[in-house]
Amino acid sequence: MPKIVRFYEYGGAEVLQIHEEALRAPGPGEVRLAVEAFGLNRSEVSFREGKYLEQPDQLPSTLGYEASGVVDAVGAGVTEVSVGDRVSTIPAFSMKQYGVYGESAIVPATAVAAYPNGLSAQQGTAIWMSYLTAYGALVEYGQIKAGDVVVITAASSSVGYSAIQIVKAAGAVAIATTRGRAKRQTLLDHGADYVIVTEEEDLADRVMAISGGRGANLIFDAVAGPLLKTLAKAAAPGATIFVYGALGPEGGTPFPLFAALKKGLRVQGYTLFEITSNPVKLAPAKRYVYDGLAAGRLAPVIDRVFTLDQIVAAHRYMESNQQNGKIVVTVP
Amino acid sequence: MPKIVRFYEYGGAEVLQIHEEALRAPGPGEVRLAVEAFGLNRSEVSFREGKYLEQPDQLPSTLGYEASGVVDAVGAGVTEVSVGDRVSTIPAFSMKQYGVYGESAIVPATAVAAYPNGLSAQQGTAIWMSYLTAYGALVEYGQIKAGDVVVITAASSSVGYSAIQIVKAAGAVAIATTRGRAKRQTLLDHGADYVIVTEEEDLADRVMAISGGRGANLIFDAVAGPLLKTLAKAAAPGATIFVYGALGPEGGTPFPLFAALKKGLRVQGYTLFEITSNPVKLAPAKRYVYDGLAAGRLAPVIDRVFTLDQIVAAHRYMESNQQNGKIVVTVP
Repeated sequence: MPKIVRFYEYGGAEVLQIHEEALRAPGPGEVRLAVEAFGLNRSEVSFREGKYLEQPDQLPSTLGYEASGVVDAVGAGVTEVSVGDRVSTIPAFSMKQYGVYGESAIVPATAVAAYPNGLSAQQGTAIWMSYLTAYGALVEYGQIKAGDVVVITAASSSVGYSAIQIVKAAGAVAIATTRGRAKRQTLLDHGADYVIVTEEEDLADRVMAISGGRGANLIFDAVAGPLLKTLAKAAAPGATIFVYGALGPEGGTPFPLFAALKKGLRVQGYTLFEITSNPVKLAPAKRYVYDGLAAGRLAPVIDRVFTLDQIVAAHRYMESNQQNGKIVVTVP
Repeated sequence: MPKIVRFYEYGGAEVLQIHEEALRAPGPGEVRLAVEAFGLNRSEVSFREGKYLEQPDQLPSTLGYEASGVVDAVGAGVTEVSVGDRVSTIPAFSMKQYGVYGESAIVPATAVAAYPNGLSAQQGTAIWMSYLTAYGALVEYGQIKAGDVVVITAASSSVGYSAIQIVKAAGAVAIATTRGRAKRQTLLDHGADYVIVTEEEDLADRVMAISGGRGANLIFDAVAGPLLKTLAKAAAPGATIFVYGALGPEGGTPFPLFAALKKGLRVQGYTLFEITSNPVKLAPAKRYVYDGLAAGRLAPVIDRVFTLDQIVAAHRYMESNQQNGKIVVTVP
């Protein structure tokens, strides 16, 4: 019987439990994976805490958006995916209905895609969430182009590294921010043109200096909270600030009204579900990722790898903010 | 000698003073108007209070964006405007440099335009600020189209009435909001499809009911402050909330982070200067206004008319929030 991760109450990493459960059959339109690896995301930490954009209908609840594996069963009406296919999941579903943490996972057939042969299962599980999140904001909505100046906050996350790669692929300037200086060199090594250590440097001043006084025209922010005012200060006239997360301290996010009026700023809330739930937007997004991986412009950054029985430690590690890139769990 | 309005200190309406001043000659690129009428705007109240987006470099300061009159002098290098032309001013300048409250006004030649023959001087001074403000947000950026559901806050201002007319011209649904019920019928009479009296009705609930549960896809807001959260609740997925003013209570504007993430909302700071300072955007905007006036789709709504010596009363009236449409001052 496959081991499945569930949380029985909201709380810290310790609420995650692993139990063997009967193997389930996929329903109509669903496929089942024999999971080889799964990736961790901040959204799963929030979901586990009961603080995500959505909450489980009941506890215990499964969780997890990203897994790679081999299809070992398909439900009625599934024609585009076959048993034996090597795929990874695209976050195109609600964690209220599906969760992939475990040895076996059932997801909608529309939420899996082959990953390139050259990638390992660990890499395969590290592509869709991070690249589609950064792609949707920067390419689909932000229409990034050569010469753009882009600020990427919390840049050492898997989404942050994906954003750096997408910015560089567009011929734009990638300014990564990180709180302490520990990750500075790693960010530079992974392609950031500039790194701003926010505990030591004034973010807006440095962006203005880097951009010749004009400011950043695209800002890709996972933090929100009081940082939004600083980002507005660092923004060029007509800039868009994409806010895709809420890593900042609780207590609210003041809207930078005067800066927004003076500079005509857009602050756009964004999640990758806008891309993954829309076939018209998803198709070119997938092509972009496949092409980028094939050409080497995109290459997933894997941080630490845990085993399934270390799931609590893996979540704790994610919450420690030490990681650079994707935290992956292998099964077994 | 022409009478000119200036304020000698920041404060209430009473700081406005009228004095005769020597007639000045327009400099290079400038024109001088013998003013026939000028229009009042909220921005001038804020400027007088020292709370506008910009402050005078020194006091006393002139003020005012909108005047109509006859050109009685042109500066060096001015070819597109001639003495005797009947024009009104487009707010395409800074009040730090120019102000039109008075019997004579000097403005950049690029900031005047003929107004249609059918309009009086009072109507001529009531077109550019209000129509260009609403046009820029709804047409230029919002790409308004038939069937759109549009919420217009503080709808009884001149900009609000202009927005209602532009929404109706596009075949979209105009939902006007007003605090008390006093202006409800007037707003309906002037084309609003629905009026929400916010002191008595739940704004978001009513917008959802009107839109069949989908929400408004364009929101045009002069208020900001805590209202922004309510507007986000009333917004459809992917909606844009244009914030073009700060009429709300002081104390900040919380950004509606979770609603923005869930619905992919854009909150866009906006002023008409984005249109008037950009010839590429201004040309189609002017055409839109001329065509709309000629076809009768647009018709400026004039509220009360004051005389120049009543300027303090005129400002007090604007601050009383009783007006429906444009407050105009006639000269002399």
